[in-house]
Amino acid sequence: MNLQTHYYAVIFTSVRTAVAEGYDEAAHRMVELAATQPGFLGVESARDPSLGITVSYWESLDAIAGWKRHAEHLDVQAKGKSTWYEQFHVRIARVEREYEFQPDG
Amino acid sequence: MNLQTHYYAVIFTSVRTAVAEGYDEAAHRMVELAATQPGFLGVESARDPSLGITVSYWESLDAIAGWKRHAEHLDVQAKGKSTWYEQFHVRIARVEREYEFQPDG
Repeated sequence: MNLQTHYYAVIFTSVRTAVAEGYDEAAHRMVELAATQPGFLGVESARDPSLGITVSYWESLDAIAGWKRHAEHLDVQAKGKSTWYEQFHVRIARVEREYEFQPDG
Repeated sequence: MNLQTHYYAVIFTSVRTAVAEGYDEAAHRMVELAATQPGFLGVESARDPSLGITVSYWESLDAIAGWKRHAEHLDVQAKGKSTWYEQFHVRIARVEREYEFQPDG
């Protein structure tokens, strides 16, 4: 019996096109919507001019699959490919261990 | 027998202090040095004013452990805690699957 609980990270790295229209609203809406999905644990995002990295955290692979096929998310995924992203790379990874540094926390 | 090859991602999320001195040089040097380590596969980084995310990719947990205890890296880790980082979080995760979008690639 394995009592260790694992969770999963979706590492989304992307290069944007020059098209800004609609992007910020859609990105904001997707974070809002993801947060309401079963198994969602959190999301972190950083973007500089050359690359964006968004990592979302999920309880299970099923939760990730459910979010991937969410109807409104599917629309935005299509728009991402047609309009907002030059390229992207998605990695689904199981978190094996972690540690934190937070001196005043 | 499992012929599937997995690799690992180290997800480093950080909040910086206001101290800029020495940071860019050290960050640049660490990327350069990591790239020479056994089992190193690549690194991607993005930082915006509130958060930085660096994801490095490695062949094995041993490769990650080796890099973590590299002498010059240990010095920089100590400096990171004392000077450059307000807080950080490290997650070591096994990449289970991935896909890419690159229309002109």
